[in-house]
Amino acid sequence: MKIQHLQGLISAPFTPFDSNGKLDVSLISGYYSFLKKNGITGAFINGSTGEGVSTTMAEKKAVAQAWADCSNQDPDFKVMAFLAGTCLDDCIELAKHAYEIGLYAVSLTGPFYFKPANVDMLAEVCIKVGKEVPNMPFYYYHIPVLTGVNLPMFDLVKALDGKLPNFAGVKYTHEDFMDFQSCMSYENGKYDMLWGRDENMLSALVLGAKGAVGSTFNYAAPLYYDLIDAFNANDLVKARILQQKSINMIRLLGKYGGISVGKAYMKIVGFNLGEFRLPVKNMNAEQFELFKSDVASLNFDEYKSK
Amino acid sequence: MKIQHLQGLISAPFTPFDSNGKLDVSLISGYYSFLKKNGITGAFINGSTGEGVSTTMAEKKAVAQAWADCSNQDPDFKVMAFLAGTCLDDCIELAKHAYEIGLYAVSLTGPFYFKPANVDMLAEVCIKVGKEVPNMPFYYYHIPVLTGVNLPMFDLVKALDGKLPNFAGVKYTHEDFMDFQSCMSYENGKYDMLWGRDENMLSALVLGAKGAVGSTFNYAAPLYYDLIDAFNANDLVKARILQQKSINMIRLLGKYGGISVGKAYMKIVGFNLGEFRLPVKNMNAEQFELFKSDVASLNFDEYKSK
Amino acid sequence: MKIQHLQGLISAPFTPFDSNGKLDVSLISGYYSFLKKNGITGAFINGSTGEGVSTTMAEKKAVAQAWADCSNQDPDFKVMAFLAGTCLDDCIELAKHAYEIGLYAVSLTGPFYFKPANVDMLAEVCIKVGKEVPNMPFYYYHIPVLTGVNLPMFDLVKALDGKLPNFAGVKYTHEDFMDFQSCMSYENGKYDMLWGRDENMLSALVLGAKGAVGSTFNYAAPLYYDLIDAFNANDLVKARILQQKSINMIRLLGKYGGISVGKAYMKIVGFNLGEFRLPVKNMNAEQFELFKSDVASLNFDEYKSK
Amino acid sequence: MKIQHLQGLISAPFTPFDSNGKLDVSLISGYYSFLKKNGITGAFINGSTGEGVSTTMAEKKAVAQAWADCSNQDPDFKVMAFLAGTCLDDCIELAKHAYEIGLYAVSLTGPFYFKPANVDMLAEVCIKVGKEVPNMPFYYYHIPVLTGVNLPMFDLVKALDGKLPNFAGVKYTHEDFMDFQSCMSYENGKYDMLWGRDENMLSALVLGAKGAVGSTFNYAAPLYYDLIDAFNANDLVKARILQQKSINMIRLLGKYGGISVGKAYMKIVGFNLGEFRLPVKNMNAEQFELFKSDVASLNFDEYKSK
Repeated sequence: MKIQHLQGLISAPFTPFDSNGKLDVSLISGYYSFLKKNGITGAFINGSTGEGVSTTMAEKKAVAQAWADCSNQDPDFKVMAFLAGTCLDDCIELAKHAYEIGLYAVSLTGPFYFKPANVDMLAEVCIKVGKEVPNMPFYYYHIPVLTGVNLPMFDLVKALDGKLPNFAGVKYTHEDFMDFQSCMSYENGKYDMLWGRDENMLSALVLGAKGAVGSTFNYAAPLYYDLIDAFNANDLVKARILQQKSINMIRLLGKYGGISVGKAYMKIVGFNLGEFRLPVKNMNAEQFELFKSDVASLNFDEYKSK
Repeated sequence: MKIQHLQGLISAPFTPFDSNGKLDVSLISGYYSFLKKNGITGAFINGSTGEGVSTTMAEKKAVAQAWADCSNQDPDFKVMAFLAGTCLDDCIELAKHAYEIGLYAVSLTGPFYFKPANVDMLAEVCIKVGKEVPNMPFYYYHIPVLTGVNLPMFDLVKALDGKLPNFAGVKYTHEDFMDFQSCMSYENGKYDMLWGRDENMLSALVLGAKGAVGSTFNYAAPLYYDLIDAFNANDLVKARILQQKSINMIRLLGKYGGISVGKAYMKIVGFNLGEFRLPVKNMNAEQFELFKSDVASLNFDEYKSK
Repeated sequence: MKIQHLQGLISAPFTPFDSNGKLDVSLISGYYSFLKKNGITGAFINGSTGEGVSTTMAEKKAVAQAWADCSNQDPDFKVMAFLAGTCLDDCIELAKHAYEIGLYAVSLTGPFYFKPANVDMLAEVCIKVGKEVPNMPFYYYHIPVLTGVNLPMFDLVKALDGKLPNFAGVKYTHEDFMDFQSCMSYENGKYDMLWGRDENMLSALVLGAKGAVGSTFNYAAPLYYDLIDAFNANDLVKARILQQKSINMIRLLGKYGGISVGKAYMKIVGFNLGEFRLPVKNMNAEQFELFKSDVASLNFDEYKSK
Repeated sequence: MKIQHLQGLISAPFTPFDSNGKLDVSLISGYYSFLKKNGITGAFINGSTGEGVSTTMAEKKAVAQAWADCSNQDPDFKVMAFLAGTCLDDCIELAKHAYEIGLYAVSLTGPFYFKPANVDMLAEVCIKVGKEVPNMPFYYYHIPVLTGVNLPMFDLVKALDGKLPNFAGVKYTHEDFMDFQSCMSYENGKYDMLWGRDENMLSALVLGAKGAVGSTFNYAAPLYYDLIDAFNANDLVKARILQQKSINMIRLLGKYGGISVGKAYMKIVGFNLGEFRLPVKNMNAEQFELFKSDVASLNFDEYKSK
C-alpha cells in the first residue's frame, strides 16, 4: 500500500447527542458541511473528542455510517475511524465495518486497562487488528495521557515496518518532540505523522509536520490555517501571536473542566451537540455564562469557524 | 436492601479459552465444582482475572450464563459479575442481563479512559448504572493500578450512602489500609468490604475483613483457609508463615510476566484454560518449564487446590 | 555486629525553631523528658518530621548534639540520626559526627535528585556511607513518597546482606506489606524492620513488627501503646477502634496542609516548636482555631501525650 | 534591574573530578578556553550536569571561584551558579558567595524532598532566596523530571512579577511548549526564557527562543550553532537534519546509562573530567568501547567541539 501523507487540518468531531444524551446522527451532515466550509480536510471520528469509549458498538457504527453518507463522495475529505476499546475482537468488528462502508482509514490505540508490557506486545496488538483490513490505512493513535500506554513511537514504527503493510503512521497526541521527529525522519519520511496537540502546532510545523488532527479545529479552523500560512511565509512573529491565541483559547478548557468545554465552544459557533457523557463533567448554566464572557475577551469572533 | 456481608474466599475465575483463543464455556461447570470442592464461596466473573475488558459483550454474557447455569441453585455460592468497560450503556446492559439470569450481584469500576475528575463524578457513574438493577447488590471495584482512578473509597462510600440503596460495598484491590479501615468502620461496618490483595490478606484480617476476592484462590484455596484458621486461632506465627508462602507464590507472577501466570498455575492444578488474550503476554513453552521448576521448589503441592 | 531489634515507639521529633525560624536547641532537653514520660524508646532525629533536609549541616549537628547531651546516659532511649541529603560526602560527615558524639545509629535514604537506577546502585550508596561508621548500626530509610526512590526493600536487604556488616534494617515508611513482610521473614527475622506508617500500625503488628518510628507518637503515644496492648491481648475489636482513632487524628494532617500540622498538635500538648520551614506551608491563626475545634471533637485529650 | 536576554549557547559544565573522585578545579581554566573557542556564551555551573547536588558546600564554592577566576574579565561569558539543595539557608549562602565573587547570576529550583504545594509556596521560596542577592539576576530552574516539582511556569512568572525585582527568567528544562510559549509572550517578552532541552531546540527556536542552556553544548557546540544558523536562514530542511543528528547523539545517553554519558563524550573530545559520583552509574571500560564505536557511526567528528 502506498502511504499517503495527509495535509491540513483534520477535525476530531464531537459526537452529537440530544438533550437526553441520545445519539442524534441527523446533525452530522450539517457538521460536515460546516467543516468543509472552513477548509477542514478530514475527520477522526469516535476518537477522544468523539467519545468513542463512551458509546456502544451500535452507536459507533451509526456515527461512522453518517459520516460515510455525507462524505464518501468527497475525495478531499478523509474520514478515519477510531476503534475505541480494549477488546480487540470489538476493534476488529469496527475496523471491518469502517472498511465496508467506505471510510478512508482506521486508528487504534494501545489497550488501556491491561497495557502492553513493551513495544513488541503493542506491535502484536496493532498487527492483529490491522491485518484484518489490509486494504485500508492503519494509524496508531498515541495518546498516553489517556491510555497510560507510554511507549516510544519510534520503536513502534520500527517494529511495524515491514510487518504490517497497511501501517500508515501515527496520530501523535503527546509532547515528545524527540520521538516525534525521529518518526518523521524514519526512512526519509516514509510514514504519515499527524500532529495531535493543537496548542503546540508551531513546534511541530518547524519539524516538517503537514497534517494535524485536533479538536479545536472544529471551532477555530481559521486561526490554525492563518498560523500555517504565516509559518509558510516565514512570518514567525505572526505565527507566534496566532499560536498564543490558540493557547489562550485552550487554557479555558483547563479552567472550565476539560474536554467537555469543546462542546461549549461549539455552541458559540452555532452547533448544539449536547453534552459529554459520564464520567466527563459538563459545565452548568452559570458556568457557561462565565465561560462566554471569557471567550468574548479572547476576541474569538475574529478567528472562529463560521 | 439489607446488605449481606460475604464470608470466606471468593474466586475471581479465569475465562476459559480454547487453543485458538475462542471462548469455551463448557469448562465452567467443572471449574465451579472444583472451586466448591475447595471451599470457595463465590465467583467474581469477567473481572481483571476473567479478562472482561478483552471479551465481547456476547462473550461476557455467555460466561455469565454458564456460571448462572451451574451455580444458581447453590445459595452458598454467590456470583457477581464485573461490568467491564468504559461505555456506561454497555455496563447497564450487562447489569440487567446479570439480573435477569439470576446472578447475585454486579460490580463496576470507574471508567478508565476518561477518568472521573472527583468523587462526585464517580458517584454519579455508580448511581447511573446501579439504579438500573435496584434489587441487586452493587459493589464498586477499586483497582487503581489498572484503572488510574485513584479516589478515596471512604469518600465514595459517604457519597453513595443514602443515594444508591443497593450499594453494598467495595471490592478493594489496593493497598491503602487507612482508607480501607475507614470504610470498614463507617456506620458500624454497614458496608461489605471485600479484600482484593491476596498477598496482604493477613493485614486485612486483623482489621476485621471477613470476605476476600482473589485470583490465587483459584489454585491455592487451602493455603488461604489455613491462614484464616490460624489467624482466628490467634496462631500468628503460623499465619505469617502461610502468608509468606502466598507471597512466594505470587512473586512468580512478577517473575514470569504478570497476570497470565495465573493460567499457568491453573495448568499445574489440572485446568487448561488457554492463554490470556492480547495485550497480555503469556509465557512460552520454555519459560513454562522454568516456571514449573520454580513452583516445585515452593512445595506448592502442599497447599494447592485439589 | 549483632543486630538489635528495637522495641516500642520511637519518636521522629520535630526540630524546634523560635518565632524567627532560628534553631532553638534549648527545648530539646524538655522534649526528651516529655517523650520519656510517655514511654517513648528512642528518637529518629533530623528526619522528615525533623526537617533535616531544610537545616544546615551545622544545625543538624547541633540538633544531634542536643539529643546526645540529654539521652546518652539513658540505655533505654536510642537516638538515630538521619543523614539528610543528596551529597554523600555530607552524609558521611554527619554519620561520623553522630558516631563521635555517641548516638546509637544512623539512617540514610536514597539520593532524591539523581535517583539510583537500580538496587545495586542503591546498595553501593549505602555501603559507601555505612562503611564509614562500621561500629554503628546503619538503617536504610525507605520513604518513596518523598524521595521518588521506589525500589523493593527485599532486594536491598539481599544486596546488603554480607556486604555491609553494620546494616541493621529498614525504617519502612511505605505501604507495601508484601515487601515489608518479605524483609521480616528474611533469614528468620535477621534484620530490624521498623514500621513507619502510624495509620497502619495494626496491619504491621500482625506481621510481627515490634518497633515503630513515627511522628504522631510525639503527641499521641498513649493511643499507640494502648493499641499495642490490645493487640497483644488479642482484643482486636479494641485495637481496631484505637487504630481508627489514630486515622481520624491523622486525617486532620491532610485537611490542614500536611506535615506541618504535627507542630500544631504539639502546641496542643504544650510544646511550641515553631513552624516548619519553607517550602512547607503552615496553617495561619484562623486555620489553627478551626483545627483546634476539629481536634476537640476527636476527644484527643483521652489519648494525647501528657 | 533591567532584564538582559542572554543569547546563544550556554554550557552546563561537568564538574571535574580526578580518578579518586576528588574535585580538581585545575581543569576549569582549560575548560573555559575550550568552550570559548567553540562560541559558548556562558556557563550554568553546579547544575544537574555539574552535580551540584552531589558536591559539598565547599566544593560548590571552589567550582564557582574557579569559573570566576577565568571568566570574570570576559563580558561575553556569563556564569550563573545553580544553588543546589533543599535547605534554603544553604542556598542563600551560595547565592551570596556567587555575588561576592562576581558571577553573573544565580538559579534555584524548587526544593525536591518536601515539594512546594502550589505556585504561591514556590514563589515564596524564590523570593526568600532571591531577595538576598538583589543586584544579581535570579533565574528559576524548571526541571520537574528530577525535582518532582511540576508547577506551570506561566503561573510562577505571574506570581513573581513585581514581587522579586531581580527575577530574570527561567531555565526551562521541560517539554511543555504551551507553558514555555506563554512565559515567552508574557508582557511582550519581558522575561528571559532559556531553553534547556537540547534535543528539541528547533521547536523552541520557532517560538522565539534566543538562548539555551544545555549539557551537549559542551561537546557538540558546532552542531547547535549550525542548527541555529540554518533556522535563521530559513533552511528548515537542513535544520531538521541537524536536530536529528543531535537526537541521535542524545539517544546514546539513554543507551549507555544517562547523564554520566556526557563525561564519556567529553573524553572523546579530549577532556577527562572523571566520573559521575554516586548514585549515578558510569559505564565500565567495556561499555566505553562499545560507546565509542556507536559514536563513530554518528560521524560525530563532523560536529563535535574542537
